[in-house]
Amino acid sequence: MDEILTMIDGPKDVKKLSLTQLEKLAGEIRGLLIHTVSQNGGHLAPNLGVVELTLALHRVFDSPRDRIIWDVGHQAYVHKIITGRRREFSTLKQLNGISGFPKRSESPHDAFGTGHSSTSISAALGMALARDLSREQYHVLAVIGDGSLTGGQAYEALNHAGHVGTNLKVILNDNEMSIAKNVGAMAEYLAKMRTDPAYFKAKRDIEYLLKRIPSIGESVARTVERVKDSLKYLVVPGVIFEELGFTYLGPIDGHSLASLTEVLQTAKSIQGPVLVHVVTCKGKGYSPAECNAGKFHGVGPFCIETGEIIKNGTKPTYTGVFGDTLIQLAEDNRDIIAITAAMAEGTGLRKFAGRFPERFFDVGIAEPHALTLAAGLAAGGKRPVVAIYSTFGQRGYDQIIHDICLQDLPVTLAFDRAGVVGEDGPTHQGVFDLSYLRHIPNLTVMAPKDENELRHMLATAVAGAGPMAIRYPRGSGLGVNLEEPLRPLEIGRAEELRSGQNVVLVAVGAMVDPCLKASDLLAGRGINAGVVNARFVKPLDEDLLRKLARETGIIVTVEDNILAGGFGSAVLEYINSQNLHWAKVLRIGYPDRFIEHGSRNELLDRYKLTAEGIAATVGDYLQRFGVR
Amino acid sequence: MDEILTMIDGPKDVKKLSLTQLEKLAGEIRGLLIHTVSQNGGHLAPNLGVVELTLALHRVFDSPRDRIIWDVGHQAYVHKIITGRRREFSTLKQLNGISGFPKRSESPHDAFGTGHSSTSISAALGMALARDLSREQYHVLAVIGDGSLTGGQAYEALNHAGHVGTNLKVILNDNEMSIAKNVGAMAEYLAKMRTDPAYFKAKRDIEYLLKRIPSIGESVARTVERVKDSLKYLVVPGVIFEELGFTYLGPIDGHSLASLTEVLQTAKSIQGPVLVHVVTCKGKGYSPAECNAGKFHGVGPFCIETGEIIKNGTKPTYTGVFGDTLIQLAEDNRDIIAITAAMAEGTGLRKFAGRFPERFFDVGIAEPHALTLAAGLAAGGKRPVVAIYSTFGQRGYDQIIHDICLQDLPVTLAFDRAGVVGEDGPTHQGVFDLSYLRHIPNLTVMAPKDENELRHMLATAVAGAGPMAIRYPRGSGLGVNLEEPLRPLEIGRAEELRSGQNVVLVAVGAMVDPCLKASDLLAGRGINAGVVNARFVKPLDEDLLRKLARETGIIVTVEDNILAGGFGSAVLEYINSQNLHWAKVLRIGYPDRFIEHGSRNELLDRYKLTAEGIAATVGDYLQRFGVR
Repeated sequence: MDEILTMIDGPKDVKKLSLTQLEKLAGEIRGLLIHTVSQNGGHLAPNLGVVELTLALHRVFDSPRDRIIWDVGHQAYVHKIITGRRREFSTLKQLNGISGFPKRSESPHDAFGTGHSSTSISAALGMALARDLSREQYHVLAVIGDGSLTGGQAYEALNHAGHVGTNLKVILNDNEMSIAKNVGAMAEYLAKMRTDPAYFKAKRDIEYLLKRIPSIGESVARTVERVKDSLKYLVVPGVIFEELGFTYLGPIDGHSLASLTEVLQTAKSIQGPVLVHVVTCKGKGYSPAECNAGKFHGVGPFCIETGEIIKNGTKPTYTGVFGDTLIQLAEDNRDIIAITAAMAEGTGLRKFAGRFPERFFDVGIAEPHALTLAAGLAAGGKRPVVAIYSTFGQRGYDQIIHDICLQDLPVTLAFDRAGVVGEDGPTHQGVFDLSYLRHIPNLTVMAPKDENELRHMLATAVAGAGPMAIRYPRGSGLGVNLEEPLRPLEIGRAEELRSGQNVVLVAVGAMVDPCLKASDLLAGRGINAGVVNARFVKPLDEDLLRKLARETGIIVTVEDNILAGGFGSAVLEYINSQNLHWAKVLRIGYPDRFIEHGSRNELLDRYKLTAEGIAATVGDYLQRFGVR
Repeated sequence: MDEILTMIDGPKDVKKLSLTQLEKLAGEIRGLLIHTVSQNGGHLAPNLGVVELTLALHRVFDSPRDRIIWDVGHQAYVHKIITGRRREFSTLKQLNGISGFPKRSESPHDAFGTGHSSTSISAALGMALARDLSREQYHVLAVIGDGSLTGGQAYEALNHAGHVGTNLKVILNDNEMSIAKNVGAMAEYLAKMRTDPAYFKAKRDIEYLLKRIPSIGESVARTVERVKDSLKYLVVPGVIFEELGFTYLGPIDGHSLASLTEVLQTAKSIQGPVLVHVVTCKGKGYSPAECNAGKFHGVGPFCIETGEIIKNGTKPTYTGVFGDTLIQLAEDNRDIIAITAAMAEGTGLRKFAGRFPERFFDVGIAEPHALTLAAGLAAGGKRPVVAIYSTFGQRGYDQIIHDICLQDLPVTLAFDRAGVVGEDGPTHQGVFDLSYLRHIPNLTVMAPKDENELRHMLATAVAGAGPMAIRYPRGSGLGVNLEEPLRPLEIGRAEELRSGQNVVLVAVGAMVDPCLKASDLLAGRGINAGVVNARFVKPLDEDLLRKLARETGIIVTVEDNILAGGFGSAVLEYINSQNLHWAKVLRIGYPDRFIEHGSRNELLDRYKLTAEGIAATVGDYLQRFGVR
């Protein structure tokens, strides 16, 4: 029975509790987290790790007056539960339910919307400066994981905050991993602080020794004075943060409510920027998640008793096929290198890392670096493949333009999670990539119709002369046969799957399959609809478009991308540039708005990108404008 | 007489010289730098600062076998001069001449193309890893300024390089400023190393004291041992870099060839990542530049004797009008905040900084942070204006989407240097912004036809309900009257300047004026061409487009942006979505390629974006497709 939790309707209720009651509440919250995520899916391990930290934050600080910003934000479930969203928590990540990330429009307690990494200190500093300028008094806190600290923007913000010197609390939630095992020199540095107290005893030891030095001459005395003066500069835990202008507190046991309360009270009383180093255990309190925090970082529905993930179907995922194919290609081509930004698991590179450890690089949550690193590798004669989620690729847009495409370097961009990703919502939908990639000179942009074509596109990309992007969706493929041998595709050549008298559907990637089914549905209504697999968003198959314009006259473009500047727009541009005035074009894709969260199927349905939706839209169009 | 310089055709010739000869060569190179930049314009102060450093690098290392990567790259003139481009140096930054930045296609000595900040360590690490994998032996060096070190990507790369531990040299060119005076906690840290040697004497002092401690019991002895053990961890210069896994050498006088040679020799012999801290003086050897390194960072033609910039015309620049107008608005609205990423001078915010120091933030070369900081300020009730060059805005594309537009926060993006910027070439042209901004939901995108309209657009933006972008070109305005009072424009309403019977030119921003002149030229050929100032690229003036489609039937869009996904594409999308089949659209803008360097006028001429070019294109089109 959730005796205490049922009484918690806001932070004020948390403040009333004794430490013992809080500990009991922590247990009840863990129960709710495990129960809800086992049904809805979600980010389990990160939230289990911050139960006590979240309770202590709301005990010591006063939200929403004080602003708490959750970096990345997938660890804000506990915060949501105790800030008035306990009842709605069962709708987590579901269509019309509460978001899996902080969202300003959802609650005044969500001070800033997050979802992408390493932004929290920037946003918190902005709020702190706004507060100072308005001569107001409240606290601003950024809660940031050690993983997010590998992102350069976090450093940019620390550098600026340390310089400005305003009141700002950074809570470093150090769980020794970002999504997978953490990487980078900073991670090693944090580990040293956690595990080797001797490393930081020097200061205390020297103070002790100074007291024992006899007065043996002026020179020694002067030196003692100098050392005393400089003791403040001696290595102390967190010297990097101290050098950047922060007061460092920690490391603190992140599961002791008493220690947390004490250190947060101290932090509250300190002027200027403070960094509190809290050590937590990802997955705490649920042994399957403690044992495998990576698996339970973001997870689908699972069985609570066994920790077994409930599988949907047996078709291979695009991600898995990508990973396997890259290994296959890399067996034959020693120049192939794989790069991920802290997403070895999510992008399917884990197996590659095991097979070719020397040729695999996880750079941390550092997309700009990942892309320029790839450009450097390519300039050094290698064939780097950067596997990245479409939405995170946005963080390296300039590096794609400037370091890769301007120099025409043979880097492969493997953009996973393109199109709508579903439950993670607007911060994670991959619906901009076609629009932000296709205007970049020198870049080839592909999208496979199924997991088999993904393989051949990857073979095409790693053999290509310049930069190549492949974008493919989240989730399962179609279960098609995986053809051997891998063979490069002709660049800029589309595939005519079905010819049509009345209209032709030119589909991008994951939209090919629903278009084939839409064609069947339309056939039932007496409409003969051809289907083309576009394959290349850039360069376009201009010969085919010309032929389609001439023969069919009505071209329907279908893409799981925002319409503005996307594939349909590219087709329009071509038709326009060639003055093919008579050709009619109907563009189907996402409208000019951010796409909410919900299951992928629900969203495809809502935006009419299912077979039924496409058939209906095409049918209506033909009814209005006539079959030619 | 350049006795020595005329003998330098490559690095091998540098290696033959004695220290005395090198010093003479340094003087001759400075003469050539000053002479050429006084005529062509360019980055003078940064290059004057690295003459000795560049000579020492080429003396100790062996380019092109060893790879030298110049961060940002505007300081690579000396490198160009001594690597076989002495004779072509007079064509610096001119159309068909040599580039002002390293360029792989220009010379094998240009190991990696740069132009944007903070990428060099990423690229160098990529090359170093490629080398290791190929079991080759050569050195890879990144030469990076202290300013570039404020960019988060540099930290991402240091973090990764320190972790990987491969052989890599980072040469920190510390001139105490980036473009303007440097900012941030890291800058203060570097300053401390330069100016306060006492800060770092602790280690030596403690060693001295340890020797003087008498044996007074086991406890002291044990402590002495422990302190000895931990001495290696005590604060030494560069502790931040040391903690990140680098061997730190420095600080070194960057104008002493002897010291530089010695430290680079040492660096060459050290395994693993090394950071060499070199202190240089920007503008060294030319007193006007030493006194005002900001002015001579990037400069137009000037008089060598006086250091006076040779002014072209007296019309106010867009940049200047922006800065003055923002002050005017800020006088009345205390919530207005100005933010720059190390470009207070270039973006016209210097005066604002003087007038409202509390409301001005220079965050260093950290565009992602600048944009999220603005989002935080807006969430805190302020009206932040981020002034940024169009090309550098690319570095914050994700933050614009994710932190500003998704949350619909009222941040103003003032995008200076939109369109072609001219001599700085492909790394600096601002020709992508319309394509990468207009597909972002919630964002309003404007472009003023002249400097007067810029003022009213700025008034519109800071009073608007959501995020607003204004993009305007480099250089002088039209010299028009600056109207008072400032009044907000109606969102999404274009301005009909001239009605036309045969065709209408719908122009974006700086293209309005040439379109008016093109209309005059067309009138001389009997063509009656209307002109519309689009004002808004998003949202479009749909009513007007509908009217133009109906009344004129031939719409010509003109934009100084790449055609793919740009304004013309937006017009096509609208015409298409409304099924206005009869309307013809001709799109004029930049083709699908990177735009080379040359003067702005030369480039506008080459790409037919002058009045003559536009008139010719429109005339040809009408000839082919007939006047309606």
